[in-house]
Amino acid sequence: MTSTQPAPVLVLVPGAAGAPADGGPRFHLADADAPQLSVIDLVVTRGDGVFETIGAFDGTAVNVGPHLERLARSAAQLELPAPEQATIAEAVEAAITAHEAVAELSVRVMYTRGLEGGSAPTCWIHARVSDDWSAHREGIRVAALDRGLPTTAAQTSPWLLQGAKTLSYAVNMAAGREARRRGAADVLFVASDGYVLEGPTSTLLVRRGEEFLTTPVSAGVLPGTSVNTLFARLQAEGVTVREQLMTPAEVQGSDAAWLLSSTRLAAPITHLDDVELPVDSALTDRFGRILAGRD
Amino acid sequence: MTSTQPAPVLVLVPGAAGAPADGGPRFHLADADAPQLSVIDLVVTRGDGVFETIGAFDGTAVNVGPHLERLARSAAQLELPAPEQATIAEAVEAAITAHEAVAELSVRVMYTRGLEGGSAPTCWIHARVSDDWSAHREGIRVAALDRGLPTTAAQTSPWLLQGAKTLSYAVNMAAGREARRRGAADVLFVASDGYVLEGPTSTLLVRRGEEFLTTPVSAGVLPGTSVNTLFARLQAEGVTVREQLMTPAEVQGSDAAWLLSSTRLAAPITHLDDVELPVDSALTDRFGRILAGRD
Repeated sequence: MTSTQPAPVLVLVPGAAGAPADGGPRFHLADADAPQLSVIDLVVTRGDGVFETIGAFDGTAVNVGPHLERLARSAAQLELPAPEQATIAEAVEAAITAHEAVAELSVRVMYTRGLEGGSAPTCWIHARVSDDWSAHREGIRVAALDRGLPTTAAQTSPWLLQGAKTLSYAVNMAAGREARRRGAADVLFVASDGYVLEGPTSTLLVRRGEEFLTTPVSAGVLPGTSVNTLFARLQAEGVTVREQLMTPAEVQGSDAAWLLSSTRLAAPITHLDDVELPVDSALTDRFGRILAGRD
Repeated sequence: MTSTQPAPVLVLVPGAAGAPADGGPRFHLADADAPQLSVIDLVVTRGDGVFETIGAFDGTAVNVGPHLERLARSAAQLELPAPEQATIAEAVEAAITAHEAVAELSVRVMYTRGLEGGSAPTCWIHARVSDDWSAHREGIRVAALDRGLPTTAAQTSPWLLQGAKTLSYAVNMAAGREARRRGAADVLFVASDGYVLEGPTSTLLVRRGEEFLTTPVSAGVLPGTSVNTLFARLQAEGVTVREQLMTPAEVQGSDAAWLLSSTRLAAPITHLDDVELPVDSALTDRFGRILAGRD
């Protein structure tokens, strides 16, 4: 007997930037297996759109508000029409409700510039069973890879879109292939001025003594929803948390480090390049429960 | 009476990387107005694909071979399966034949990593009447914009995909918006080490005395099919052509400069930022005829 994966769910959201032009519903279920996109959608011809991936655990989506606020910030950086966050939040809920009940769902919110020649943005929600991240939650080897840009690029050259979560991710994918060639499971990008940034799809968290550190958003990294959740919890417990520029050597010399993301949760870094880091499994498990909304 | 644009033509190419899995034809016409793409095609979710735009003038496509060789080079940089250039060339011809006869067609060849979870690449040809570039062929103001990366990035950090024509073009689109904000029609990117690179969708050509210069491909720019065509013609006439690193000031002090592309052809630069450049209209017209295969 083969186990079959529950079918993904697709919700199209023609009302994501205001009432749909055709007067139809703001969102509706659609066939996830049928072609749904035009070849002249600008996300297809130019990678011109923004997105979020939201984790839903035991049917409950985590951090929907912060994710959709970040979607709106990314959209503003690309000068896209402002997304209607309330409509999209309802569509996210509809996708989760329509999906077979599973422990871990990955819910993508996609928001594009729409068709060439001008149209409303195209928006959809795609919910599917999360990848099995159990091995990554035990620990991952990470390769430090040059990102080419300085930490000042977000300030000096906003057209480089640093800190926007765009659908132009070919470089992130290529960096992942390079990491696997080096025997690593993931990437930590390093700016041209020598400071670590973030992973292609994750935020860095570092423990140094009793302090927890992450890369400053001003360095051009994505403001991490997961790190914000952990920082809020740690701060409430009296622990010091802060943004700080760090070199790869400083991360290698830290007391623990993780890559955080909404579906993989907290992945402890066992090695940054060839340097081994301490792994705190109990703390990692606790971070995972917090990020899954289970603690 | 309103003038209606001839309808675009879409050719799907399931055999672009080898015989289609379903044993069907290698390519076939499809409805350009109907949704044809999956929401989980990696070009949609990650901008993970490569492309070419080929100009066809009076029904004849120009430089199909060099464009498809460049597509293959871009695909190799992204570690995509090698495209079957002969099949794609036939599909390009089929698209042009199926399109109403017009003076200038823009024919896009798109080649993506296919569906998440693994599939053959997705490939299609989309032919449509070219934009009206007549004003650009008279002359354009160009803004010099920081690209953030050094000219050495292509050598040191191949995962940054410099010199690959990918579908992750959100930065190129954002740079175009910044240029328009500055009153310019297009962009000339500048590397972090101070040398000019290329436009977001074009190659730089500079005249200095009796020499014609362009940016070295080793600096991480796309190898331009149009500049190659002009260089071959000029060289045959005994004119010196070569690759050279140039600063914005050197371009501003040149005897003429153009941005070259396959459908816009030769667009003379009237101003780089606030500095005016000489425009040679007769030479521009001649370059345009050569690039359109009309000379």
